[in-house]
Parts: sequence; structure tokens; C-alpha cells
Amino acid sequence: MRRSLKPEALTAAGFAPFGDVLGATELKDTLSINHGQTQRYHRLASVDIAGQAGPPIISIFRSQPVSLPFTVAVMERHPLGSQAFMPLSGLPYLVVVAPPGKLDMHKLKVFLAGPGQGVNYHRGTWHHYNLALQGQSDFLVVDGAGPDNFDEIQLPVEQRVSLALE
Amino acid sequence: MRRSLKPEALTAAGFAPFGDVLGATELKDTLSINHGQTQRYHRLASVDIAGQAGPPIISIFRSQPVSLPFTVAVMERHPLGSQAFMPLSGLPYLVVVAPPGKLDMHKLKVFLAGPGQGVNYHRGTWHHYNLALQGQSDFLVVDGAGPDNFDEIQLPVEQRVSLALE
Repeated sequence: MRRSLKPEALTAAGFAPFGDVLGATELKDTLSINHGQTQRYHRLASVDIAGQAGPPIISIFRSQPVSLPFTVAVMERHPLGSQAFMPLSGLPYLVVVAPPGKLDMHKLKVFLAGPGQGVNYHRGTWHHYNLALQGQSDFLVVDGAGPDNFDEIQLPVEQRVSLALE
Repeated sequence: MRRSLKPEALTAAGFAPFGDVLGATELKDTLSINHGQTQRYHRLASVDIAGQAGPPIISIFRSQPVSLPFTVAVMERHPLGSQAFMPLSGLPYLVVVAPPGKLDMHKLKVFLAGPGQGVNYHRGTWHHYNLALQGQSDFLVVDGAGPDNFDEIQLPVEQRVSLALE
């Protein structure tokens, strides 16, 4: 079977089974700090990295854009830690996820993330690697530096899914 | 004494005594990942947070801009952990730091950070709160959620420093 999926808008509620949305919204705690000069949108996500997968580190991913329709042929997960992506280039991108546990491609979800929306994949959430659209896109990434924290599955043709915006 | 300081450009070498610069440069390890689709600028910084100051969390700071000349009248530090800021709004900002230990305002340094340059203050580095310029500026922040990790000093008038670009 070869299915085609279109993305839905990325919202905190829709993404909750997979992780956190990073964005300056009013949905979480906000605190006035820095003598009133700054509003802190507090604890949008926790960095949840097992000891052997640590320490947590900060990196930048520079991703080349993909063309649509795009075929999902691999999925990956980090069994020992969360992984956060915050877009830096002002461009939208696609987020492709499936629940933790045994990979079930029938439970695949596709979200269109806006330029001000990051995601934090919870530990073990299956996801596709960054799918930049429109142009080269940088992302700030927070994940674990340790080894043994990466599983990748190459999907047989009958499990592949085609992504398109329309 | 009332001194006036002008910022220098933010570079990894100049900022090294205080922390790390977060930027997609060739200075650190780069790895080709995601089947060649992504360049990983690896481990630009480590998240160094003591157990009692954890867990590490991800927040967004929305800062209103300050007017120049600006008077530095307070300094702060996080004795138990690092704190990283990555600009999201495409605007420059000022970074004001002094070495860890007893605060010595004669060792104050001021850097002008470009829109693609973040900073990770090392544990204990004295710093001023975010000084956005030009307009409202969002920053992705990685720090510790725990208590007892914030010291602030109100500077007497004779130790204050005036910041200007020219």
C-alpha cells in the first residue's frame, strides 16, 4: 500500500502525544522578569535525557530543502532522550511523527510547522529527519551527546508514505 | 567613577572566557547527517546544569528593546548552571559579561551579537539581562528549572557603566 498524506497545522494539543511545541504563546506559564523588560514563556519543554545519553548539548542543523511530493522511506527515534528543534531561518517545515513503541506507519501524523514553531520530540517518539521546505533552513537542536541513542528503520516499499501539501 | 563602553564584535575567541558562541560556523565539528540532507554543527555548547538546578528546560524570552546609551545598573549570575540564548527575531543585541567569582566591574566586556549569533553563559559567568536593540526580540533559552540558581547585584552609582554603540 502506498498512501498519500497532507499535513495538519501544528498545535500543542495535536502534537501532545509526540512532544512539545516551542512557541511564544499564552498557553504555558508566563513570567515578567528582567525588571519588567522581558516576558518569560516558561518551560515550554523539559530536556529529558538519560544519564548515559548525556550530557545535553546544543548544536545547529543546516538542512537543505526537500521537494514535494516527498516519500517517507526512513523513520528514526532516540530511545534515551528528547530532541528539540527550533527553526532559525523563518521558513516553514514538515514534522512527521509516529507514537513510541513498535513503529506503526498507520499511526503516522504529519504537521506543518510555521516559522516561529519549534518541536521537542519526547524520548522514543518516532520521527522523520528535518524536512525543510522552500530553502536552506537552520535549526537550533538540543539533544544528548552520548552514544547508543539512535535507531533508524528503512521502510519497505509497501509501508512508504507520500507527503504533499495539497 | 562612571565609565562608558562600546561593544566589540562577538567572536568565539573573544567570548571564550565567559561561554560559547552559538552559530553555524566552520570552527567546530561538522557532520553530514540525515542521508546527506543536513549538516550538523555539532556540540556548539554543553548544557552544564548541576543536579539540584535541573532539569534543563527550554523557554522563550520576549524582550523589549532598550534605548542607548544604556546604564548597566545590575548584574546577575546562575551559580549552578549554564544559560543559553539563541536569537529568533533576526535583530542584533548586546551581551554584557564579567568573569565568574567576585564581581569586578573593571573586567566588564561588552559584545555586539549579530542576528545569527547565540551565547551560552558558562556556570557562574556574571552577565546583564538580555539587551535587545531595535525592536521586540525573542530568544530561545536553555537553563535549569531548579531554585537557588540566581544571584543579582545592584551596582552602586560609582560602579555603573554606560553603554553606547558609538
